[in-house]
Amino acid sequence: MPKLKSLHATPEAVETAFYDALEAGDVDALMDCWSGDEEIVCIHPGGPRLLGHHAIAASWREILGNGPINVRPTDPQVMQGSLVSVHSVLSRVMALVKTEGTLPGRSTQQTMAVNVLVTHVFFKGADGWRMVLHHASVTTQDADAMPSPTAGTLH
Amino acid sequence: MPKLKSLHATPEAVETAFYDALEAGDVDALMDCWSGDEEIVCIHPGGPRLLGHHAIAASWREILGNGPINVRPTDPQVMQGSLVSVHSVLSRVMALVKTEGTLPGRSTQQTMAVNVLVTHVFFKGADGWRMVLHHASVTTQDADAMPSPTAGTLH
Repeated sequence: MPKLKSLHATPEAVETAFYDALEAGDVDALMDCWSGDEEIVCIHPGGPRLLGHHAIAASWREILGNGPINVRPTDPQVMQGSLVSVHSVLSRVMALVKTEGTLPGRSTQQTMAVNVLVTHVFFKGADGWRMVLHHASVTTQDADAMPSPTAGTLH
Repeated sequence: MPKLKSLHATPEAVETAFYDALEAGDVDALMDCWSGDEEIVCIHPGGPRLLGHHAIAASWREILGNGPINVRPTDPQVMQGSLVSVHSVLSRVMALVKTEGTLPGRSTQQTMAVNVLVTHVFFKGADGWRMVLHHASVTTQDADAMPSPTAGTLH
């Protein structure tokens, strides 16, 4: 019998469940945050656009196969409608970065802190709030030094 | 007297006006696509998160100062609500990439084709459809080889 899906009352509750699932390395709990719609979109930093449950679940299974990800987003910027919520958050993740060695075919791996900007879109439907888009990309912006809304950063 | 803002009847019309403005190198027309809300978000590839009209307009003025950008997005993935529209599109842009030279302080610039994934979020308000978020990031995915919704790309 399939497990009953959890019903999230707010977009913030889905986002918390999403990061809880990353921390637990639990792909099922993570996929439970998403809308049942097949048009859902997931973009990992630098990666291709993934569409639909099958491709998205497979990508997270591969990522979490390296171990759970303990990250909590900061600096939320929220745009809220009655049936939609758009969140822009910043997070600092420890990523395994591959570096090519001096001998052909020899590469080394090292863990580095990477700043990632994430756009989350949540829709409200009959089954509560669900994630429909996760777009993550590496940024030069430091997690501790986000610009304020009123300060222009480029002139 | 301030110019009257155009009223876009569909999210697609705003998106077309946005790319028309890039092609014309017209920052005013480009900013006219955005919501009047100060919570709007813009992320250029690799760059910091920019919030509000002042910072966003300044960034586009700097980018378009190098000349207009002639790009049309492909492979749209659209999630549509009554008052929100989320578009994921792919585009191939010609970007000026800086490469460090062999002598300190000597860098060269070359133009390269870069594939960019863009998330656009549009809200419908009293002044028609308006852009509230533009999140662009470089992808390894080739513009001509997007995965189909049913094909998993990672195993």
